[in-house]
Amino acid sequence: MEFPYVSATRRQLMVDLVSMVEDHLQSLLQPCSLPPDVRNFKNPNGSAEASLHIRSGEKSSPIDFVIGSWIHCKIPTGASLNITTISTFLNSSTRAPNFTFEVIQSSPTSLVIILDLLPRKDLVLHPEYIKEFYQDTALESHRQSLLKVPGIKPYVSPSLFVRSGFSPAVSVLKLDVEEEERLEEIMRDHVSPAAKDVLMVWLERCAREEDEKRVMGEEEKRELERRDKSFRKKNVEDDLELKFPRMFGEEVSSRVVHAIKEAFGVL
Amino acid sequence: MEFPYVSATRRQLMVDLVSMVEDHLQSLLQPCSLPPDVRNFKNPNGSAEASLHIRSGEKSSPIDFVIGSWIHCKIPTGASLNITTISTFLNSSTRAPNFTFEVIQSSPTSLVIILDLLPRKDLVLHPEYIKEFYQDTALESHRQSLLKVPGIKPYVSPSLFVRSGFSPAVSVLKLDVEEEERLEEIMRDHVSPAAKDVLMVWLERCAREEDEKRVMGEEEKRELERRDKSFRKKNVEDDLELKFPRMFGEEVSSRVVHAIKEAFGVL
Repeated sequence: MEFPYVSATRRQLMVDLVSMVEDHLQSLLQPCSLPPDVRNFKNPNGSAEASLHIRSGEKSSPIDFVIGSWIHCKIPTGASLNITTISTFLNSSTRAPNFTFEVIQSSPTSLVIILDLLPRKDLVLHPEYIKEFYQDTALESHRQSLLKVPGIKPYVSPSLFVRSGFSPAVSVLKLDVEEEERLEEIMRDHVSPAAKDVLMVWLERCAREEDEKRVMGEEEKRELERRDKSFRKKNVEDDLELKFPRMFGEEVSSRVVHAIKEAFGVL
Repeated sequence: MEFPYVSATRRQLMVDLVSMVEDHLQSLLQPCSLPPDVRNFKNPNGSAEASLHIRSGEKSSPIDFVIGSWIHCKIPTGASLNITTISTFLNSSTRAPNFTFEVIQSSPTSLVIILDLLPRKDLVLHPEYIKEFYQDTALESHRQSLLKVPGIKPYVSPSLFVRSGFSPAVSVLKLDVEEEERLEEIMRDHVSPAAKDVLMVWLERCAREEDEKRVMGEEEKRELERRDKSFRKKNVEDDLELKFPRMFGEEVSSRVVHAIKEAFGVL
């Protein structure tokens, strides 16, 4: 998968993350089966363009699917909005968290990053989950290190639902600098290593079919499915169904959102 | 209840909040039944002192209990740590959130405040809960307004579990100023009105026995009880059972923690 329209450092990072996922999971992943007009699409006047790559996991694997995407959209300020995302979703054979890394940029000198292992359990009811996936993985240390870098500040997502889905150790950060070069430096020297470390934690600790992480009973499995479904459904409704029609027009948007809902199992 | 050791503005705020709760709930609350040596206690050498006031709700009410407390403790820097808290807990006849307001001060020119309606449901599974108790109550507007005040910054609790218990619209803020007077001003002009507004939302929208907020089935009731219990148990374990022995010595600490666990229903 390629990521045009973004800086060299960011493109390299996204390509590296996709490669890490594909290299580690290899035969656990099926080829992308999206039709060409969902893999790449633009709006009728060409002011917005996007690409979507979804690979489902094999039935016997713990992987539900992995998704990579980018959106490029001209905005009224004259600048562009560029979003690049990689997320991985596990199925209900395991309760381990999902990985997500997203970069949202709407000016040459500032951007927002989201880096997390998204919990799949109610953490108040399951403090042992916090210990296993957040304390023992030192996820919090990345957030703290990144916040020490000049030019990086905490950021808060405008959506209350999106905030509710994050882990307590999520990095939601705004990079805001004077010069484009400094943004590249921060991405290369700080954000890249953090994103790769967290993805490696996910690949090694979450995406494996180890006995102790496997869901035990049918009830827990059903509970996970219900929660995963609610998370995906609400995200599609709040995010894509609201924003895509404005960016891509009704026709393109409804075709793409339909394909995404199908892949997410929330059609 | 009185709050010695803290500034006049802060004392007035805490007294006002306690009065608001007691005036509104009145006959729904039983008198405090804690023994005198739990209501007020200090450590053997007198360097730490605290007070605890718990009033249970009447059986037929939606109130489980309300708790007010303060801790005053000399710290090695020569300054004092002063914590004042008011929290209200509902029982499983309703799924509405609990109220909490806490002020933690360890220097004359800085303090941390926590102001929230603590959710009692897994919000990823219950997006309608976010709408009802957070969007429709505009809780988020207080966080945003407070963050516009010079001297107020976002703060992050060191505990991942504590963070997990907060709502997505929680105000966890650090006030950090040059002069004590400025701290008083911010407390009086900004923090006080916000805390009172949020408490009023809780009293009017959460603490009432309205049909639509009442838990429908036995399963949901059991689920709420399980979640409430996990929240309280883990908070006592992580917070009080670790910190109280250091502050108050083993004997005092074990007596007080026992009484708190009893009141919390997690003995």
